Amino acid sequence: MDLDALLSGLRAHKPAALARAISTVENGRAGFEQLLAAIHRDIGRAYRIGMTGPPGAGKSTMTERLVSAYRARGLTVAVVAVDPTSPFSGGALLGDRIRMESVSLDSGVFIRSMATRGSLGGLATTTREVCDVLDAAGFDRIIVETVGVGQSELDVSRMTDTSVLLLVPESGDGIQTLKSGVMEIADVFVVNKADRPGADKLRQEIEITLGIRLGNAFRHVRAHHGVKTAPAAQPSRPTPEAWAQPVLATVAAKGDGVAEVVDAVEQHRAWLERTGELRERRRRRLAERTREVVDRALGHWVWAETRAVQAIHERLDDVESGRISPYEVAAAILDGIKQGAKI
Amino acid sequence: MDLDALLSGLRAHKPAALARAISTVENGRAGFEQLLAAIHRDIGRAYRIGMTGPPGAGKSTMTERLVSAYRARGLTVAVVAVDPTSPFSGGALLGDRIRMESVSLDSGVFIRSMATRGSLGGLATTTREVCDVLDAAGFDRIIVETVGVGQSELDVSRMTDTSVLLLVPESGDGIQTLKSGVMEIADVFVVNKADRPGADKLRQEIEITLGIRLGNAFRHVRAHHGVKTAPAAQPSRPTPEAWAQPVLATVAAKGDGVAEVVDAVEQHRAWLERTGELRERRRRRLAERTREVVDRALGHWVWAETRAVQAIHERLDDVESGRISPYEVAAAILDGIKQGAKI
Repeated sequence: MDLDALLSGLRAHKPAALARAISTVENGRAGFEQLLAAIHRDIGRAYRIGMTGPPGAGKSTMTERLVSAYRARGLTVAVVAVDPTSPFSGGALLGDRIRMESVSLDSGVFIRSMATRGSLGGLATTTREVCDVLDAAGFDRIIVETVGVGQSELDVSRMTDTSVLLLVPESGDGIQTLKSGVMEIADVFVVNKADRPGADKLRQEIEITLGIRLGNAFRHVRAHHGVKTAPAAQPSRPTPEAWAQPVLATVAAKGDGVAEVVDAVEQHRAWLERTGELRERRRRRLAERTREVVDRALGHWVWAETRAVQAIHERLDDVESGRISPYEVAAAILDGIKQGAKI
Repeated sequence: MDLDALLSGLRAHKPAALARAISTVENGRAGFEQLLAAIHRDIGRAYRIGMTGPPGAGKSTMTERLVSAYRARGLTVAVVAVDPTSPFSGGALLGDRIRMESVSLDSGVFIRSMATRGSLGGLATTTREVCDVLDAAGFDRIIVETVGVGQSELDVSRMTDTSVLLLVPESGDGIQTLKSGVMEIADVFVVNKADRPGADKLRQEIEITLGIRLGNAFRHVRAHHGVKTAPAAQPSRPTPEAWAQPVLATVAAKGDGVAEVVDAVEQHRAWLERTGELRERRRRRLAERTREVVDRALGHWVWAETRAVQAIHERLDDVESGRISPYEVAAAILDGIKQGAKI
C-alpha cells in the first residue's frame, strides 16, 4: 500500500481512495494501523449519529430520510450499516441498500455495509475505525445504523455523538425495553410508524419513564449529582444543564416528523458543544480506542508471535486426560508473558 | 468460598451447591477459576446439544420437548438458555422459562438462563464454563439454547457436540440462510412448524443444498478430502465416513417428529464416537478454552494490574490534540508488555 498516495487521495475526496482506505481498515490489511495513525490528526470534524432499534423499526427508511434532510441543508453524509445479526437476517441489509438508492447516486453521500465476519478485534472496533476514515475524508455527518440486539446499542452509543433510538408501537413492552439500560444511552427517542395503534401509549410510557411528565424531577437530581463546584480558576466553565431527551413521533416512510428528528440531533449537538460534554465524550472514546487497539495487538502478538499456541498443544494430552486443567495451562502461559514486562 | 464443600456438594448432586457453583462462574466471583480447574477432571460425561435458529422458530418449545423425551428415556437434562439479543427481546426468555414449567419441577431437569451483561471474557466463554459445571454435576445431556443471531450459531457449534438448527417456513430465504456458512456447522436440520405452507419447499431447498438429492456427491468428496492414509501402526482406526446431516420436519408444539430429532441427535453422537470425531472435537474445544482463558486473564492483568490505563491517560491530551495517535500509544504499551516476556 502506498500510504502517501492513499492519504492524499483521501484528503482530495477521491472515491477510489476512500473505498480502498475503508476496505484496508475493514479487512485489517497490512498497513491499516499506519493508515489510521496517519489520519488521526484529520479526524474530529464529522459529527457521528447512531441509529439503533429493534428489527422492523424502520431504521433504514429513517436513515435514508435523514440523509436527504442533511443533503438539503448542504451537508455531506456517510452511512455505515452494521448488522451483527447476520447470517439469519443477512438478506435484509441488501434490501436496505437497494432502498437507499434514492440517495446513492449523490456524490455527497456514501453508504457502506459492514461485514460481521473476520474483523480483527471485533466488529465494533472496526466500525469505529471505518468512521474515522469517513471523518478524515471530510463527511459532515456520519450515521451508524445498527439493528438493536443487545450489546450493539451500547456499542453504538460509545461510537457516536448522538444516539437515536427508534421504536415502533409493535415493539411493545415499552417499559420493559426502557428498563434494560437502553434509556440511559439514547439521546433522542423516536416512535416511528406513529400512525399505527399504540404509538401514543408507547410515547407516553417512554416519557413517563424519562420523568418528563413528573416535571423532570429526577432528571434534575441526576444532573445536579454530576455538578462539581467550579473552581475559581475556571470562571468561564458553563453551568452544567441536563439534556432533556426528546421523544418524537414519526412516519419515516412518509417523511412525517423527519425534520424534527434532524432538529433534535442538531440541538443535542449544540448542547454537547455548549456544555463541554462533546469534548469529554470524544476524549473517553479516544481512551477506549487506545485500549481496544492494545487488546487487539496483544492478542495478535500472543497467538501469532509467541509460543503460546505451541504451549497449549504440548499440554493438550494432559488436559484431555484430566491431569491438568486449561486454567493451569493458561496460568503458566500468562506467567511467561508477565516475566519482566515493563508496564 | 469453601471450594472443598462446594465440590463435594456438586458431586453429591445437591441443588444448592449446583446453583452456587453456577453463579460463581457466571459472575466471575473470586475463586471461579479454581473451581473450574478442580472440576476439570470430572467433565466429559455429559453430551452437549446446541439448539439454535432465528427468533420465532420454536426453540424453547422444541427444547422442552427434547427434555421430556430424554427424561422418558431415563436421562437427566440441563438446559442453558442464552439470549445475546437482549435487551430488546429481554422479555422473551422469561416467557420461555415459564413455558418450560412442565419440566421444571422434575429434579432430573435443570434450567438456567444466562445473562448477557457483565460476563468476564464474553458470554460464549462463560456459557461453556457453566456447561462444564453442569457436566461435573452429572447431567447426562446439556442443551444450549440460543437465538440465532450471527456469531451465536458459530459459538454454539463450538461448544456443543451436536448442533441442531431449527428453521421455520417463515424464516424464508432458505437458500440464503444456508449459504452463509450455517450449513457447515449444523449437524441436524429441523424444519419446525412443518404444518405451515412452505415447509416442504424449505426442506427440499436444504436437502438440495446439502447435496442429498444429488446422491450425496459432493459430500462424499468432502469426506474423502479429509481422509488420511491410515498408518500401519493404527490398523484399528475406523474408516472415516461422512455424516449425512438429516433434514427433519416437526411440529414441536404438538410433539410431532420430536422422537426423530432425539434419534438423530443420538445417531450423530454414535457417529462421533465411532469415527473418533467426538474426541477430536473435544480436544479442539479444550485447546480453544485454554486460549480463551489466556485472553481473559491477559486482559485482566493488563487493565487491572499494570500501568496501562495510566499510560493511556497520561497521553490523552496529546491524543486529543492530534500530536500522537491511539495506535502509537498502544504500540508503546505493547512494547512495555513484550519486554522480556518468556513465551
